[in-house]
Amino acid sequence: MEAIYVVGVAMTPFGKMLDRSVKDLTREAVEGALRDAGCAPEALEAAYFSNACQGHMQGQNLIRGEIALRTMGIQGIPVTNVENACASASTAFHGAVQFLRAGMGDVALAVGVDKMFSTDRALMFSVFDSGWDIETTEENRARLLELGAGVEVPEGTMSTRPYSAMMDVYAAWARFHMREFGTTREQIAAVSAKNHQHSTRNPLSQYRNAYTVEEVLAAPPITYPLTLPMCAPVSDGAAAAVLVTERALARFDRKRAVKVYASVLASGIDRAPTEVDKHIGARAARKAYELAGVGPEDMSVAEVHDATAMGEIIQTENLGFCAFGEGGPTAARGDTKLGGRIPINPSGGLESKGHPIGATGLGQIFELTAQLRGEAGARQVEGARFAIAENGGGIYGIEEAACAITILGSA
Amino acid sequence: MEAIYVVGVAMTPFGKMLDRSVKDLTREAVEGALRDAGCAPEALEAAYFSNACQGHMQGQNLIRGEIALRTMGIQGIPVTNVENACASASTAFHGAVQFLRAGMGDVALAVGVDKMFSTDRALMFSVFDSGWDIETTEENRARLLELGAGVEVPEGTMSTRPYSAMMDVYAAWARFHMREFGTTREQIAAVSAKNHQHSTRNPLSQYRNAYTVEEVLAAPPITYPLTLPMCAPVSDGAAAAVLVTERALARFDRKRAVKVYASVLASGIDRAPTEVDKHIGARAARKAYELAGVGPEDMSVAEVHDATAMGEIIQTENLGFCAFGEGGPTAARGDTKLGGRIPINPSGGLESKGHPIGATGLGQIFELTAQLRGEAGARQVEGARFAIAENGGGIYGIEEAACAITILGSA
Repeated sequence: MEAIYVVGVAMTPFGKMLDRSVKDLTREAVEGALRDAGCAPEALEAAYFSNACQGHMQGQNLIRGEIALRTMGIQGIPVTNVENACASASTAFHGAVQFLRAGMGDVALAVGVDKMFSTDRALMFSVFDSGWDIETTEENRARLLELGAGVEVPEGTMSTRPYSAMMDVYAAWARFHMREFGTTREQIAAVSAKNHQHSTRNPLSQYRNAYTVEEVLAAPPITYPLTLPMCAPVSDGAAAAVLVTERALARFDRKRAVKVYASVLASGIDRAPTEVDKHIGARAARKAYELAGVGPEDMSVAEVHDATAMGEIIQTENLGFCAFGEGGPTAARGDTKLGGRIPINPSGGLESKGHPIGATGLGQIFELTAQLRGEAGARQVEGARFAIAENGGGIYGIEEAACAITILGSA
Repeated sequence: MEAIYVVGVAMTPFGKMLDRSVKDLTREAVEGALRDAGCAPEALEAAYFSNACQGHMQGQNLIRGEIALRTMGIQGIPVTNVENACASASTAFHGAVQFLRAGMGDVALAVGVDKMFSTDRALMFSVFDSGWDIETTEENRARLLELGAGVEVPEGTMSTRPYSAMMDVYAAWARFHMREFGTTREQIAAVSAKNHQHSTRNPLSQYRNAYTVEEVLAAPPITYPLTLPMCAPVSDGAAAAVLVTERALARFDRKRAVKVYASVLASGIDRAPTEVDKHIGARAARKAYELAGVGPEDMSVAEVHDATAMGEIIQTENLGFCAFGEGGPTAARGDTKLGGRIPINPSGGLESKGHPIGATGLGQIFELTAQLRGEAGARQVEGARFAIAENGGGIYGIEEAACAITILGSA
């Protein structure tokens, strides 16, 4: 199978940018990635465009990619608009990899963008509900309460739904993890404190304020046991990558190229909550390691989908960085800090860097490419050789719907 | 490059089905295609899911494919939700072809579905507006009036927008064609009359009423020169195809397999309206013929995107079945009728068979597969050897945004 390389990446700052448009953010990310690659826009042979919210937020339901890319003169080439909830941008990356592997061309663009902020708060938060199966939402809420049952919940710390249904899902899985494995609130808070600490070193991060574990625990509750800094914010932003075949690599700077060792996309399966090894992330990671011919012990750094701090604990386990059930203690020990055994989310993660749904997966690729090139500045993991990204999205039943695992390595 | 085959197809009836859901229609099409292929659902290694309207109509903005497929036990595999306005289903087909060509698996599903009818008529028609660039819609309206200028318009025959902005676009291109090439209303009506006649032979068609040219001309005006039977209706429906690699073909019935000679996806380019050879359909068709190693003269039958009868005239030219500007006379002469030189839209086309946006492209694949297998019953094109589908979608500026061309042949 022909080798595929990332030769250019860029991301906009993530944050609240009411005055910027989807087109405008797309342009900044795409022009940045092309500049980083030393690639002319005319060299692109296909584009995969990821967006999750523009239909809901602006009423642009169709051909979002063609519209955003046309304004920058990217025309004529095949444009595929993809969506997989919070895993949309990795799905775009995966599409670009497939295009190249299929021999349909040598240079492809993957770009993800979302513009989620609005002065209409009800509109803004309601988009998250459409990442569930809308026909069975109430039934699933009941299943979530059962999933998280048996954990004592202090009064006034359960969601009254001001924020998002998604956080209720993560909270239920957190209570499940507390009950089954003895995970503590302090361990979950340790993830959050670490990620906010990491983000102080990332100039593109939405937030750059350090929190102690105590401060995270004392913050406003979202849904027990989650507090505000344990949850990803609403964000605007875009990220992009230029991918090429081995054949085309000679036209680019090989020294700064990063090799795609595996790109795996999966959907969830019905399973008992205790069948943790059947979790979508665990299944996809096993397949990715197999394709890449490397294992968790070879990884230098990871970016995982910490839509909440609980998500990171589960994914730390799924990626094989510790045994199932040991994600909490692993974080609390400092293993996943910069300088630790396996640094996770050096970028600050979704919790602090931000989470523009349609851009997030490519934001992870941006970070890992910078790490593998040795260009990550104050948050550099020394000597990074292999890196893994996990990007998840959507819920059906009470199970995650989509998950993408990408393994990159210095070329 | 490894050969790819279609081994199973199905489509639901297209029409008004207020009591059916996206899940229900998906199930009927997918189970039908699997049954037609003799394929177990567990054999599927990837799914490409096309839908354009469920966000707008029902608020399901995210992970529509995972949700619809899960109810039929299709889980675990990569699911990519794709959208390209009216070309969405061909984009799903193209994605499945790429997945197989990339060597990522041997059996893939492409499915498209839309549920467009609603008792809320304003909601129902407003989805079409989001197939434009919403930020520049008014500016484009002015450009459309200019495009169609110089043609005398009888009083009371221009849209007051009760129907759809899309029809205004086709009508402006029709007036342009009348002015530049002398195309007549009678010629446009001949396309419509032919397609409605064809649909009387298609049991899955939304409408099955024959119209004469005179009846088409006397029907209620939409936007001059288009009348109601010249325009595709609002529709519900789904269609699906199972695709396999050459390697996997031994597990299926080779005699009923149809070979994919080319699958091309393109986006539009800014061009002067008179640069007809730069039309997205013409560019994509040239590339498809080149990849397939055959030409227009080799085609036995075609399905083209007659969202209006005018669209069919333009695509007849783009696909090389006549010179540019000659599409009107070609239709009026009967060349494109069943029994004519190159039968176009034997299914009845979008105008009469129906046009559930996210399903249409796979509806075309269903028809052409039936034709190439010799299973098209009363509408069979005798000895069909090669077949071509053209599926277009969306408008940016005044130019079509996406177009997919598929060339199939008996294996």
